[in-house]
Amino acid sequence: MIIVLKPEVTKEQQIQFSEMLKENYDVKVNVWNGVHSTVLGLLGDTTQIDIEYIDAQDIVESVKRVQEPYKKANRKFHPENTVIDLGNGLKIGDGSLQIMAGPCSVESEEQIVEIAKSVKKSGATLLRGGAFKPRTSPYAFQGLKSQGLDLLKIARKETGLPIVTEIMRSSHIDMFESVDIIQVGARNMQNFELLKELGKIDKPILLKRGLSATIEEWLMSAEYIMAGGNSKVILCERGIRTYENFTRNTLDISAIPIVKKLSHLPVIVDPSHASGKSWLVEPLAMAAVAAGADGLIIEVHNDPPHALSDGAQSLTPEQFDRTAKKILNLKQSLNS
Amino acid sequence: MIIVLKPEVTKEQQIQFSEMLKENYDVKVNVWNGVHSTVLGLLGDTTQIDIEYIDAQDIVESVKRVQEPYKKANRKFHPENTVIDLGNGLKIGDGSLQIMAGPCSVESEEQIVEIAKSVKKSGATLLRGGAFKPRTSPYAFQGLKSQGLDLLKIARKETGLPIVTEIMRSSHIDMFESVDIIQVGARNMQNFELLKELGKIDKPILLKRGLSATIEEWLMSAEYIMAGGNSKVILCERGIRTYENFTRNTLDISAIPIVKKLSHLPVIVDPSHASGKSWLVEPLAMAAVAAGADGLIIEVHNDPPHALSDGAQSLTPEQFDRTAKKILNLKQSLNS
Amino acid sequence: MIIVLKPEVTKEQQIQFSEMLKENYDVKVNVWNGVHSTVLGLLGDTTQIDIEYIDAQDIVESVKRVQEPYKKANRKFHPENTVIDLGNGLKIGDGSLQIMAGPCSVESEEQIVEIAKSVKKSGATLLRGGAFKPRTSPYAFQGLKSQGLDLLKIARKETGLPIVTEIMRSSHIDMFESVDIIQVGARNMQNFELLKELGKIDKPILLKRGLSATIEEWLMSAEYIMAGGNSKVILCERGIRTYENFTRNTLDISAIPIVKKLSHLPVIVDPSHASGKSWLVEPLAMAAVAAGADGLIIEVHNDPPHALSDGAQSLTPEQFDRTAKKILNLKQSLNS
Amino acid sequence: MIIVLKPEVTKEQQIQFSEMLKENYDVKVNVWNGVHSTVLGLLGDTTQIDIEYIDAQDIVESVKRVQEPYKKANRKFHPENTVIDLGNGLKIGDGSLQIMAGPCSVESEEQIVEIAKSVKKSGATLLRGGAFKPRTSPYAFQGLKSQGLDLLKIARKETGLPIVTEIMRSSHIDMFESVDIIQVGARNMQNFELLKELGKIDKPILLKRGLSATIEEWLMSAEYIMAGGNSKVILCERGIRTYENFTRNTLDISAIPIVKKLSHLPVIVDPSHASGKSWLVEPLAMAAVAAGADGLIIEVHNDPPHALSDGAQSLTPEQFDRTAKKILNLKQSLNS
Repeated sequence: MIIVLKPEVTKEQQIQFSEMLKENYDVKVNVWNGVHSTVLGLLGDTTQIDIEYIDAQDIVESVKRVQEPYKKANRKFHPENTVIDLGNGLKIGDGSLQIMAGPCSVESEEQIVEIAKSVKKSGATLLRGGAFKPRTSPYAFQGLKSQGLDLLKIARKETGLPIVTEIMRSSHIDMFESVDIIQVGARNMQNFELLKELGKIDKPILLKRGLSATIEEWLMSAEYIMAGGNSKVILCERGIRTYENFTRNTLDISAIPIVKKLSHLPVIVDPSHASGKSWLVEPLAMAAVAAGADGLIIEVHNDPPHALSDGAQSLTPEQFDRTAKKILNLKQSLNS
Repeated sequence: MIIVLKPEVTKEQQIQFSEMLKENYDVKVNVWNGVHSTVLGLLGDTTQIDIEYIDAQDIVESVKRVQEPYKKANRKFHPENTVIDLGNGLKIGDGSLQIMAGPCSVESEEQIVEIAKSVKKSGATLLRGGAFKPRTSPYAFQGLKSQGLDLLKIARKETGLPIVTEIMRSSHIDMFESVDIIQVGARNMQNFELLKELGKIDKPILLKRGLSATIEEWLMSAEYIMAGGNSKVILCERGIRTYENFTRNTLDISAIPIVKKLSHLPVIVDPSHASGKSWLVEPLAMAAVAAGADGLIIEVHNDPPHALSDGAQSLTPEQFDRTAKKILNLKQSLNS
Repeated sequence: MIIVLKPEVTKEQQIQFSEMLKENYDVKVNVWNGVHSTVLGLLGDTTQIDIEYIDAQDIVESVKRVQEPYKKANRKFHPENTVIDLGNGLKIGDGSLQIMAGPCSVESEEQIVEIAKSVKKSGATLLRGGAFKPRTSPYAFQGLKSQGLDLLKIARKETGLPIVTEIMRSSHIDMFESVDIIQVGARNMQNFELLKELGKIDKPILLKRGLSATIEEWLMSAEYIMAGGNSKVILCERGIRTYENFTRNTLDISAIPIVKKLSHLPVIVDPSHASGKSWLVEPLAMAAVAAGADGLIIEVHNDPPHALSDGAQSLTPEQFDRTAKKILNLKQSLNS
Repeated sequence: MIIVLKPEVTKEQQIQFSEMLKENYDVKVNVWNGVHSTVLGLLGDTTQIDIEYIDAQDIVESVKRVQEPYKKANRKFHPENTVIDLGNGLKIGDGSLQIMAGPCSVESEEQIVEIAKSVKKSGATLLRGGAFKPRTSPYAFQGLKSQGLDLLKIARKETGLPIVTEIMRSSHIDMFESVDIIQVGARNMQNFELLKELGKIDKPILLKRGLSATIEEWLMSAEYIMAGGNSKVILCERGIRTYENFTRNTLDISAIPIVKKLSHLPVIVDPSHASGKSWLVEPLAMAAVAAGADGLIIEVHNDPPHALSDGAQSLTPEQFDRTAKKILNLKQSLNS
């Protein structure tokens, strides 16, 4: 951490401040006296230092971190990729490509089992489906809730596909015990109370990026889960909010290589929510794979016009089959 | 709601679709046949219709709402201003200006009582202070929690100022029983599970706008609370995330007159979080009052450089005193 | 175009307004009377209608375009892809992938000839290089100007690579006569006076997307050039400005399939400016190709640390060679 | 300027690099050796140093400016406010409030003279009006051009109000000789060739902020004009592009106090373009004055529904009269 002091700061103030820093944070402080200003360089573990606290000091002009504020999620301190083992040979983060597919909302046993079988045949390796749905309007369909979870388990039994589904409050964690991957939605990325609770369990967490979260904030939210002891975090880029409103969100394709560089955690992409339009799912999925994503999560519905939520962005099983083939071919050619 | 069908849609498809709309939503459907496309106009209560569901229909080119999707928060159905009565003659939304002031975090009895007395003398009518703190980093100070709530109550007893403080999870609602206004932070604006629970109690809720929430989404979150039966919602503009990073956020000053037009709910402004810099608090507060805000929420700390959070944006009691005087003078001259 | 009138509008006002529309714009007007509001549907060529003018009418509640406001750039009126022929069998927009490579700024004959030879060997089919440089600071290097153009021509002569370079003012058009593709930079995307002049010449124009231009505005700028008679427009996505500042800009990868759907013009990607970091160029270039781009424009410098501008995002010839190989392999596998 | 070197940099590389910096930029280089990294501190005039060039160095981890990159526009080197004297006692930047009012486009002699007389009576001190209009669509009305300039001069003669109007290309500068203030529109804020030409004349320039320009970029554009010798720059905040699309743009009210702190140049606000809606003009104008703006530029049209451009945001003369009264009252009360 580098701290630039204001021009008018006295020698005495500078010494006092340096002493405070050494005492409170167990860091070394190097002083460099310029003509116009004095610069302090802090050595040691500065992740514990609140940059805003330093910035608030009367005598401080500006502060700059040299180290990232996250530790457990940081590739510097954990150079090898985190690989998440889902059993049965299914791994996320090992260089393979996992495709999670399924409807936005679970609607009935027939629906979810049919889709599960269909996407499995097309190449999906996990089943996604919403039981609890975060909806902008209180009057919109909110999901089948615990019944939806039961239906997902039936579909898993029928197909062997592990299941991914979203949690919305920490008091539901018990209900999610037999879920394979628990998803945290974009709107809850900074629901810190929920993240803390998920840090206490031993289950993979799919952490979606917030609508307007920076990559650093996203990694800090992963850090919340990891700080509690759960290191099985999968990051999911799902589009960010920008001024462009042709698409619902703007897929930040750069996030994939950036996360790969800054962190050791796996990162997947959700082209369905990123675009909000079914005809954009395939080109965005292709781009994500070419950019190095560890997986994809794609909405598939047997009858998109009658989907109870997010129909506009769902593929039909036939469309998914064609898209999955292209994606898997691309992945193969990249590997060869 | 106006639905434009695709050019290739047949007469039969159009009739089928219209029938489905009438049945499912109890609306009337008017058909207008153009040369290139057919347009359907829906009459009746369309707030229950999921616009994305309609948009997903194969035969639909585009959809446009004529009505807003919120009802209870909508000025059209409730033309008079909502006035929230806090007792002792203190009202929010009646044309007066209420100033909520206090530290970002409650740190000790001495601190909070001293600040409370000081801000009261300067003209503040409510005391703000954080007991539970949402922090980007898991390693940062997270607040004094229930002890912080107790200290706020002591300060209220000493000064008579009602207290405003932030809630972070629904399981804490009981603890907040004697709080005067419960704040929902920007990061929880779409924590729908929390909003639903707050809809069940009878207490004013200060709903901060999310970092990248549209005004419509913000009003939809108010609608969540109101749909549950609690109509005492105060909206709080606290800056939105934009590309400009000189300030922490960009105060959307237009939100004040817009909310006033679309809704009957009171709206206040947080110039401290909007700017992140203490020297910007006064000009932004002045602007907010001139634009018609019903109140302000301002961070004041007796010792900003030693504040445990957000020091950079806190005013000292002396600075607050000067600023409050200017603000109150401005309000008076606007009323005269 | 669909116009929703305000609830209080009288029958007479509605008729007057409809008559005005018919007269002024030679359109048919269909009226649909709802319970709360009246809706007008306009038939005919509405691209000439200023949507803001309509929106300004006292009696208008809101307006919605059904047709896009661009015509010559619109795929609806020109279903086949525009293919731009650069001679020698080099075509842009025919399904092939063209790679434009070279330094941000032309610095010397030795430099540009050396880079040109090198990128050609690696697979580039066009040479890019800046002679006139738009720089944020008036004190930064502004390019070699006309001398730079001469050096580009020398490099073209030595290698046979057609040249792409940026124009900054319309009075320079004569100087650019023997340039193969004239580039309009992001900051000039809405320099309408320049666009109009470029519409009068018969030369391919590479139109970069503005920092915060919507796709519709970008296509409207293409329309400016095309309206003047020059239909040889190549669109170039180069990243948009968002709140995320880890990268200089955020590559909007969705823009590729969207432009392909809305327009018949070719679209290429600039991964160098989009990211501002050399290590991101390869993954973004791969993503662009997978998403369907017609070409890439990549910065290559023989000595990035001594580049007179934009060094941080330039590849060395060795890096470019490796990246180009991967890109060309990917393209081949997508075609097979 | 502070430069953090990469951990692996050798002593020798560091010395070589420091020598290069000293030689090329005539700065002193201070070295501070940390445990993990080495930091260089540059002393002297660093405005000439291209931060991207430094950032491109293989051995550089990151760079941070301590000084702002603008000099002539910087309050540090010019502490007193710049006051622009328009003659007849009319000054901008001296603590007074100047109101520029008039139609978006000049349409006829009758129109412009009538509006000029009317706005003068209401308190406006300058007349605005567009002769050359930048329009998104090539098919929209582009202004009366040189005839429009002539009509403005007639209106000036009739009322004594100085005139403000927009220039779109440098070849028009001669035509603008008798204009009192030349406006550079948002889309041309980084049309550097135009800025350079305007730096060579001796006439006040109203520089609108670009749609997505940072405050620093805006000040750098002012620096372009000032570097050429013309120090009469008036900055104009007119709303920035954000994700919120209820308004056409989002007025960045914070820009006023920030510009006042960073620069000595006057700053005014355009509430008409910032909102795009006439009913928002008054509250935004009030906010701007309360935040410290030196002036306002407001669209007024005698017949907004028939305005040839931007009607939706224009006030009628009667509305302007009421708004101007409130604004002037507010200004008076702030001064007292």
